Amino acid sequence: MRLHQRTDFAIRLLIYLGLAGSGPVSVGRVASSFAISEHHLAKVAQRLRDLGYVRLVRGRSGGLELLRDPEDIRMGELVRQLEQHILVECFEPATDQCRISSACSLKRLLERARSSFFAELDRSTLADLITPRRDLVRLLSIGATSS
Amino acid sequence: MRLHQRTDFAIRLLIYLGLAGSGPVSVGRVASSFAISEHHLAKVAQRLRDLGYVRLVRGRSGGLELLRDPEDIRMGELVRQLEQHILVECFEPATDQCRISSACSLKRLLERARSSFFAELDRSTLADLITPRRDLVRLLSIGATSS
Repeated sequence: MRLHQRTDFAIRLLIYLGLAGSGPVSVGRVASSFAISEHHLAKVAQRLRDLGYVRLVRGRSGGLELLRDPEDIRMGELVRQLEQHILVECFEPATDQCRISSACSLKRLLERARSSFFAELDRSTLADLITPRRDLVRLLSIGATSS
Repeated sequence: MRLHQRTDFAIRLLIYLGLAGSGPVSVGRVASSFAISEHHLAKVAQRLRDLGYVRLVRGRSGGLELLRDPEDIRMGELVRQLEQHILVECFEPATDQCRISSACSLKRLLERARSSFFAELDRSTLADLITPRRDLVRLLSIGATSS
């Protein structure tokens, strides 16, 4: 049971932006703070832009800005949008080759379990994930002068 | 969000054994009924044997037998045992390189969500998955003469 790396990276990017506050932040800076691939993070940023979580400010001091208040970003909603929701083969009707899909109740059972998973995530918002703020800001060197 | 293929195959194998009732069933027969890899299914069968769900009867008419009543096999317990539980990088302390793991609450949030997922699965047993029996038996050609 695994979430996509892009979901993990998307959450990290939003945590960074939530901590950084106002003013655009470059993808390169976030990638560097987390020591992760800037290329992958840029793709994640595009997806978050398409979903309306961030906007891209162009120009020399441009970068990403959070478009929604951290209190308004429910984690279940976010993860639901980022994940493709394929738990097992029968979740993809176009390619499903399981012989018993037409009569099997496993899919419905897994759908209920997945709903419980997201419902629990929806009890938290990005605001919950950017605390303890001071520790997180320190670990990510946010606000430190670039070297 | 995806379960391992081996978890999917393990559930299919147990469904087959639950439908077949008494008497050992060969891995080859189950693989053939589902049109899946016998090699992969044999590995899954070993894991289920190690976990105490099935036993291997040796000999010419040997095969796998279910060791527990379908009513006693809770799906949450089964999936919990089969999945490695790695939702994101910080679930593997040995290889985790995330800079904020020491202060971040994402892992605890995902752990709670995962518990909700398994709790929902635990509301069903293998007995629920082997109904409607007649349809499932027909789709898998259980009891039909081998061609």
